[in-house]
Amino acid sequence: MFEILDRDPHSAARRGRLRTAHGPVETPAFMPVGSHGSVKGLDPRDLEEVGAGMILGNAYHLYLRPGVEVIREAGGLHRFMHWEGALLTDSGGFQVHSLAALCKVREEGVEFRSHIDGSRHFLTPERMIEVQEVLGADIIMTLDDCPGLPASRERIGAAVRRTIDWARRCLEAKKRPDQALFAIVQGGLEPDLREECVAALVAMPFPGFAIGGLSVGESREGTRETAASVAASLPDLAPRYLMGVGKPGELVEMAAAGIDMFDCVLPTRNGRNGTLFTSEGTLNIKRSEFRHDERPIEEGCPCHACSHFSRAYLRHLYQSRELLGLRLNSIHNLMYYLRLMEGIRISLKTNRFREFREVFHRSGLREARAGLSESG
Amino acid sequence: MFEILDRDPHSAARRGRLRTAHGPVETPAFMPVGSHGSVKGLDPRDLEEVGAGMILGNAYHLYLRPGVEVIREAGGLHRFMHWEGALLTDSGGFQVHSLAALCKVREEGVEFRSHIDGSRHFLTPERMIEVQEVLGADIIMTLDDCPGLPASRERIGAAVRRTIDWARRCLEAKKRPDQALFAIVQGGLEPDLREECVAALVAMPFPGFAIGGLSVGESREGTRETAASVAASLPDLAPRYLMGVGKPGELVEMAAAGIDMFDCVLPTRNGRNGTLFTSEGTLNIKRSEFRHDERPIEEGCPCHACSHFSRAYLRHLYQSRELLGLRLNSIHNLMYYLRLMEGIRISLKTNRFREFREVFHRSGLREARAGLSESG
Repeated sequence: MFEILDRDPHSAARRGRLRTAHGPVETPAFMPVGSHGSVKGLDPRDLEEVGAGMILGNAYHLYLRPGVEVIREAGGLHRFMHWEGALLTDSGGFQVHSLAALCKVREEGVEFRSHIDGSRHFLTPERMIEVQEVLGADIIMTLDDCPGLPASRERIGAAVRRTIDWARRCLEAKKRPDQALFAIVQGGLEPDLREECVAALVAMPFPGFAIGGLSVGESREGTRETAASVAASLPDLAPRYLMGVGKPGELVEMAAAGIDMFDCVLPTRNGRNGTLFTSEGTLNIKRSEFRHDERPIEEGCPCHACSHFSRAYLRHLYQSRELLGLRLNSIHNLMYYLRLMEGIRISLKTNRFREFREVFHRSGLREARAGLSESG
Repeated sequence: MFEILDRDPHSAARRGRLRTAHGPVETPAFMPVGSHGSVKGLDPRDLEEVGAGMILGNAYHLYLRPGVEVIREAGGLHRFMHWEGALLTDSGGFQVHSLAALCKVREEGVEFRSHIDGSRHFLTPERMIEVQEVLGADIIMTLDDCPGLPASRERIGAAVRRTIDWARRCLEAKKRPDQALFAIVQGGLEPDLREECVAALVAMPFPGFAIGGLSVGESREGTRETAASVAASLPDLAPRYLMGVGKPGELVEMAAAGIDMFDCVLPTRNGRNGTLFTSEGTLNIKRSEFRHDERPIEEGCPCHACSHFSRAYLRHLYQSRELLGLRLNSIHNLMYYLRLMEGIRISLKTNRFREFREVFHRSGLREARAGLSESG
């Protein structure tokens, strides 16, 4: 299902293509997050317009609400949310730990109380595969044990062994042939535990691997170093997905480390907070300097917000708490992320990733993309 | 600027066309409300898709935020909000009374404190024309004195005389030749005061008249009777605009009374509350009966929400407080209102308004519209 098309001679970066039942996904790819069955603020048409190939749903959230039966009756999550592109569901290992109350991890599975209504639930690896088979995403994830950081070495070691055991059980439970099941690597910031986890998981027939347990409280340097070393130890020919990371500059660096897939709530969450990504850095639309600013968020950005609306209008919408502002800001930020990924892919295809990466860090996305269209 | 195309032989209803610098508006027309420069939840493309011809802005709100200078620099409200259709701005006489603090009405104008930041303001009829000339809507409104009901006869009488005086001053202050200035009739539920107001206003060269001071606390019957009798006393050939009314059945009755233009926040406000208009009455999307309901809000409705999403999904979005739900619900409700108005116009054109009105009240919009396509 995964094909590597180009490789950067100066880094571990590669350009690839993931084939799914809902179309090909070009990598490195950024997946907008629609945990509850909607990418916050956008509708499927907006997602198509910003160029999203694959988006994310979350099995934990959707299991709790609206519940599996509702989505089964709708014919799966694609139909429920009217999304015709590729879809990946996370199992919810991270959400159980970060959102649920009274979470107890046992060998058999995880017991917790719903963060919505306090109801008791017991989820096993087998059950989470069943849930994700009903949701019907193109890529599904193993249930992992994902402790927040900092955590003791003992706790992380136990999480690694449980994550490996649960991954095996997920693989055995899986029935649908049209979904790809990716395994999640745990191990905190402990190199040997990460290695142990990778060694056990790559011995099983998973078509792809995710790096989990990062962006959960550790330093950004810790995230980067661990992600890069885990990426290097994963099979070259399988897609690598770094979960929950990150800022634009981090995506570029992690692509250089050989990561193929990313997801993060940052572009939509920041959009709702009025923080907008541009080639000159982030811009806070609340600021009074934009009151009379007739320019778009970013000159040359082809998004719906930049094509039709000024900073002055977007500031007004933000100040007036108008819903339209939340949507337009989110559309712009996703467009920024997806154009960044496109820039990375084009630079890999034309053997200019090293230059793209340098110019991006020095001068931002516009300059980096401009460099791609100059004759070589 | 206004042309009457068809008349119903059984009521005062008429079909017409308002010519504006931003295209013709077919009447009877419903205008979605975008007080702050955005129809809540929708963007201009959504408005085009639901078939909005003319929308509403509010000079009081926009004067306070973002301020007149911001919109002047943008080149007017059309450009600021990227709306290419027709636009009407209300003067804010109603908002000053209902929203502002410490509102004091004097002969010269109205003094108040902003409901946003407590700042002091003094608005005169001349100033509100100046503001509306900067906003640049196709139709602008006189500043009226609009007391809430119930109010004493003395207070209403004083409001009528002030409204007349201010209307004259607005007319004298008006400079832009490309905007039509409509006068607002006040007078509460007092027939003789309404008559006095109409008599004075129709003696001045206004191209259109609005019925104000209703839907401000009185009974629905009071609204209806007063609106109908004022409509009957207004010049036949000028457009008549009933401000702030109302429910779908009221629009049909008021069209029968000869009203040409309506505005109301109900479709968008109800949409955000999860109350949806259908031919079977209103439907509350929160209710658990919709949890597994795979049908659209209304079968046969061509709106974006009904074309792509189920009641089950919309209920899930509502329960999960997803922004997309607020937008889809508002789109559906506006489409319902605009298709109702279209039905009224088609029935007037084909001389079937009496039948349309009867069937609408008995069996709802779908049946009433179905009747229009049967051969006569």
